[in-house]
Amino acid sequence: MMKAAVIGASGYAGIEVVRLLLRHPDFELVAAASDSVAGQKLSSVYPALTGMTDLEFVHADFDKIASECDIVFLAVPHTAAMACAPVFIENDVAVIDLSADYRIHDKATYEKWYKADHTSSDLLERAVYGQPEKHRAELVAMGRSWEHGNTATTPLVACAGCYPTASILASMPAFEAGLVDGDYVVINALSGVSGAGKKANERTHFCHAAESAQAYSAGKHRHTPEIEQELSEAAGYPVNVVFTPILTPMKRGLLSMVTLRIKEGVSQEQIESAYAKRYEGEAFVHFLGTEMPQTTSVVGGNHAHVGIAFEPNTRTLIASGAIDNLDKGAASQAVQCANIVCGFAETDGLDFANPTV
Amino acid sequence: MMKAAVIGASGYAGIEVVRLLLRHPDFELVAAASDSVAGQKLSSVYPALTGMTDLEFVHADFDKIASECDIVFLAVPHTAAMACAPVFIENDVAVIDLSADYRIHDKATYEKWYKADHTSSDLLERAVYGQPEKHRAELVAMGRSWEHGNTATTPLVACAGCYPTASILASMPAFEAGLVDGDYVVINALSGVSGAGKKANERTHFCHAAESAQAYSAGKHRHTPEIEQELSEAAGYPVNVVFTPILTPMKRGLLSMVTLRIKEGVSQEQIESAYAKRYEGEAFVHFLGTEMPQTTSVVGGNHAHVGIAFEPNTRTLIASGAIDNLDKGAASQAVQCANIVCGFAETDGLDFANPTV
Amino acid sequence: MMKAAVIGASGYAGIEVVRLLLRHPDFELVAAASDSVAGQKLSSVYPALTGMTDLEFVHADFDKIASECDIVFLAVPHTAAMACAPVFIENDVAVIDLSADYRIHDKATYEKWYKADHTSSDLLERAVYGQPEKHRAELVAMGRSWEHGNTATTPLVACAGCYPTASILASMPAFEAGLVDGDYVVINALSGVSGAGKKANERTHFCHAAESAQAYSAGKHRHTPEIEQELSEAAGYPVNVVFTPILTPMKRGLLSMVTLRIKEGVSQEQIESAYAKRYEGEAFVHFLGTEMPQTTSVVGGNHAHVGIAFEPNTRTLIASGAIDNLDKGAASQAVQCANIVCGFAETDGLDFANPTV
Amino acid sequence: MMKAAVIGASGYAGIEVVRLLLRHPDFELVAAASDSVAGQKLSSVYPALTGMTDLEFVHADFDKIASECDIVFLAVPHTAAMACAPVFIENDVAVIDLSADYRIHDKATYEKWYKADHTSSDLLERAVYGQPEKHRAELVAMGRSWEHGNTATTPLVACAGCYPTASILASMPAFEAGLVDGDYVVINALSGVSGAGKKANERTHFCHAAESAQAYSAGKHRHTPEIEQELSEAAGYPVNVVFTPILTPMKRGLLSMVTLRIKEGVSQEQIESAYAKRYEGEAFVHFLGTEMPQTTSVVGGNHAHVGIAFEPNTRTLIASGAIDNLDKGAASQAVQCANIVCGFAETDGLDFANPTV
Repeated sequence: MMKAAVIGASGYAGIEVVRLLLRHPDFELVAAASDSVAGQKLSSVYPALTGMTDLEFVHADFDKIASECDIVFLAVPHTAAMACAPVFIENDVAVIDLSADYRIHDKATYEKWYKADHTSSDLLERAVYGQPEKHRAELVAMGRSWEHGNTATTPLVACAGCYPTASILASMPAFEAGLVDGDYVVINALSGVSGAGKKANERTHFCHAAESAQAYSAGKHRHTPEIEQELSEAAGYPVNVVFTPILTPMKRGLLSMVTLRIKEGVSQEQIESAYAKRYEGEAFVHFLGTEMPQTTSVVGGNHAHVGIAFEPNTRTLIASGAIDNLDKGAASQAVQCANIVCGFAETDGLDFANPTV
Repeated sequence: MMKAAVIGASGYAGIEVVRLLLRHPDFELVAAASDSVAGQKLSSVYPALTGMTDLEFVHADFDKIASECDIVFLAVPHTAAMACAPVFIENDVAVIDLSADYRIHDKATYEKWYKADHTSSDLLERAVYGQPEKHRAELVAMGRSWEHGNTATTPLVACAGCYPTASILASMPAFEAGLVDGDYVVINALSGVSGAGKKANERTHFCHAAESAQAYSAGKHRHTPEIEQELSEAAGYPVNVVFTPILTPMKRGLLSMVTLRIKEGVSQEQIESAYAKRYEGEAFVHFLGTEMPQTTSVVGGNHAHVGIAFEPNTRTLIASGAIDNLDKGAASQAVQCANIVCGFAETDGLDFANPTV
Repeated sequence: MMKAAVIGASGYAGIEVVRLLLRHPDFELVAAASDSVAGQKLSSVYPALTGMTDLEFVHADFDKIASECDIVFLAVPHTAAMACAPVFIENDVAVIDLSADYRIHDKATYEKWYKADHTSSDLLERAVYGQPEKHRAELVAMGRSWEHGNTATTPLVACAGCYPTASILASMPAFEAGLVDGDYVVINALSGVSGAGKKANERTHFCHAAESAQAYSAGKHRHTPEIEQELSEAAGYPVNVVFTPILTPMKRGLLSMVTLRIKEGVSQEQIESAYAKRYEGEAFVHFLGTEMPQTTSVVGGNHAHVGIAFEPNTRTLIASGAIDNLDKGAASQAVQCANIVCGFAETDGLDFANPTV
Repeated sequence: MMKAAVIGASGYAGIEVVRLLLRHPDFELVAAASDSVAGQKLSSVYPALTGMTDLEFVHADFDKIASECDIVFLAVPHTAAMACAPVFIENDVAVIDLSADYRIHDKATYEKWYKADHTSSDLLERAVYGQPEKHRAELVAMGRSWEHGNTATTPLVACAGCYPTASILASMPAFEAGLVDGDYVVINALSGVSGAGKKANERTHFCHAAESAQAYSAGKHRHTPEIEQELSEAAGYPVNVVFTPILTPMKRGLLSMVTLRIKEGVSQEQIESAYAKRYEGEAFVHFLGTEMPQTTSVVGGNHAHVGIAFEPNTRTLIASGAIDNLDKGAASQAVQCANIVCGFAETDGLDFANPTV
């Protein structure tokens, strides 16, 4: 059993990491840190954990926690992660960072979009983008090197954001197979309200969010450069993404609708075949062919469903990816990354069936 | 008071027409026809109407109803409308058709998308597309001619569909002002479940639809040719629309997200100015500038809210339009059209404030 | 047109009063006061009012407002109402108070349940409990006396609370007809989240409230003494109420389930007859017999639906009342009371049909 | 591994049993039977199971299935269960019946409430009521006897209904401790829409159920005799239950509000102590003291939360129990019963943490 800690454990993503670690066969949860509720039982703050654990939240004392664990999950806001990740890396504690701080390879791009100095940019090169279906090999390599005692590669995983995860999974096969015509991608993505975090505000008020749909940050959401980075890598050339998220009345669930043009002469069969092949053998990503995925089918776990439609007149591919924004979009994908860098089976602790209804 | 009837009155759109007519200052509802519930009180089938009316649903006896009314609202499925509209037109009864049967000018296009012969194509030329903010002049002209006793122009209004209404309102100003670069428009639109109609089936089951988002008919929904027809007219050249609707867990409400490219050199100010000018003085369409519209602000009435975002790097305009799918997307827009062709004030019976929460 | 003002106009109940006054035939809204959003347009804070009004929120300057209006609606928290009602009464401005401050006739009872001194208890005797179907005669008398220039009866209406309104309407006929055995009444009532107010907090967060049911203040909610007062009056003897509210995932709507024992020998027919007779001719309260009312049938307006079931074995009456918590439970009932004390038709401004779906 | 089959596997309760068996350490799912979808993959009908299993639904051929399994779960409607249970019992296959057919000990009572002849009443005496926290000893004894080869005790478990489970758990400790005054119990219980089953009809239509609350079968729901039977047994004297369920806009979750009178002289501390003691050591039932339980805390798993409030003036106990109607109210409780009669650890396959948000 490896000893694991969670920083920012009382937020929505953090508590989901906690939930998964509490019944994980390889990790022992030794600390769930959250200054705002330190001293309270986990089950008091989240009654769903009643009977699951007697743990209490502790203060986020980085040095103390670093001395107690082998791996830490950072479920804190951006800029907060880069403030504590170095402490853990220096102590040879693997870092699974759920924030955006190490996702963008280019410092300047990060600083422009996040309007903050990057104070830990020396670690940017070490960080692997935590989207396992895309970066598995790097995650494996990083883990093996660490296992062999190379503290220069103590893992630092920059877990993919929720919108990027669904959007990349929905469109990566087309780019990788060289089917895409041009560099212009339109993404509209619907997210459940938990994506806005645990903080109560006007937008998360039930009477504002229920029975409601509204776009926000249209064309300028911070997940844009992250999606562009990964799709450009998949394409082999710079890709421009126009991304607009839409707040939707669901607690959890994220549906990304990716629209792009396909090269002349490419048939629907070729596209379907590229997708099927790309996700063959994946435990958590399932290509549904021309069935459009539904968020409820994936809520509560690490699975992603991808479906496509091809409009031949304009050679347009409409690719749709559904995930749980808190799980495959955050917590469970983080655990999946942790499984990989620690050399465990990738499905450990994640191989359960979600409620069917 | 003009005498009005509703055919298909027990469906979601039909009963909303009924609701509006029951308190309309210029129309008297003389018949609410629905074979499936004929003989039952309106308030038995829709308890929300308790205390509003003692009317009972009647059988859809076209000849009888034609003899009793001056204007009829057809809230029936496509193909059913073209089966009865001629009866009413022949009897000099104005027809406000909420179906798709007379929306598409081109018979072949209709027959291709709706997979049905058009049995009333002689009336296609007479029909005016019932989107008042776009076709007000034709609606007025049609009404005036009728008023002067010209039965050759007994009004036939082909009310705009729900997705087209929101999508046209969101993008028409850019096309009309000549700001759009190219002919390629991507539309993702979210609809509440009432858009799927009153029939209970697997998709409309609460346990399927709640907490759920799922695209359907991606790239091939029947509203596509209707949107293309109207935007092409606005543009002055043929426009291609890639349209994907998404079922969203709301009872009512529709949010259209229209994405298109803008000509080089056009500034955001020019775009905003074109929108502001286009909707100046409109009673029911409100341009919110760069505020993104929220469906809940328009649910229950005839208002449409439009907001835009401009992404200058790719010269992309993201235009969002919010309406109530059953009202501005069907029933209340039908009443608005009826007001116009009958020469009443356009806001008669529609000038009320929706619930604020 | 009488001039009307609303204090606390930006809260959920206040803005609903505003909505109703904006299209009321007899009242002109001259001021919508709310310190927190003073200077902002009503339609900025509540986009649903876009196109309905250009008014801005003003500061709650009681003296200034008293000089400008004939009638004021107080949509402020308890204790805040008693701080300003006297100012208006002294200026001969009729007060329609939506708070609890003047509902409880007995000062000590108020002070015990609300844990606050009653600083305006001299007005308690003047106040009429604003539940028109129960206290219409007193409201009429108060209004007529005022109309005749008697400033000693400048109206002060203590509008009924939301839970009390539904609970009283559901059980009053049985008490008034002397059918009830004993003094023990059990009430469970479900309320939509808007009942918790506009303030964003943990309980009103979408992710907490959606898909959730939870009782609160079981057996000790502040509406208990109010219900006891009114049912005791209806019964002619002191009645004990055990009341538990349940937060339910709806924006609006309130369903009260009242359970009480019926005297031996009383038949179901007698009970139904007592209810039918009691609400005969009422414009806003509808007895559905043994049909159980549904909240969605009354959301958005001033109607209340009441249905009953009789369990003969234990002689138990289960009476269910459904209202819109913000309308018949607050804003529209306040307008109904205002109509009565001002001598207008009771249905003025309230006689519209709600959305049917 | 014991071989398990599920009859009625495509309904909401059946598929939840399937979900739990798919990852159960002691049971191997050998057949999921459902005539209506026989031949289809489980993951086609329930996409949430994609990647979990390649099984297909099979026809409900009782003899064939009886020859293939050691234990069968009957997730079929009442009357259908008694038609097939004997086949399995005769073949020495343990029967875990989720229907109502063997719950009521008294044949006449069953026949009166279910308006059907009981065609398998010889098995009534064998059946144990499947509410493990109340009947664990009998379940254990039945299992042990079977294990010793006594086919006269091949287990037949009549799993408790959803409303009874929550209501019994909420009130049993007070009855067993002799604290209750009298024999009169009022229960109002809220259920999510999945309780109405998978069949699409008017009541389960999203547009009817969303944002809606409505009582049904008030005072005459079929779960009444089941609750009376169990509470009478707990009390030691006949108890009368007035039970009214309320359909609430949640997919899953059930909240029972039980109201009863407490004997004079009994303090709140005594009540709390009785509850705490009763559920001490239970893995799945948690007494929250005076915290009121919330359905979302238990949705997705086998846990039940119970909280109480005591109103001393009328000596009224308000006891609230929250469960997942499909899990602790059906599928997971059935698995818990199966674990017990098969001699497995009671928590096997059920010891996971639900989504926290």
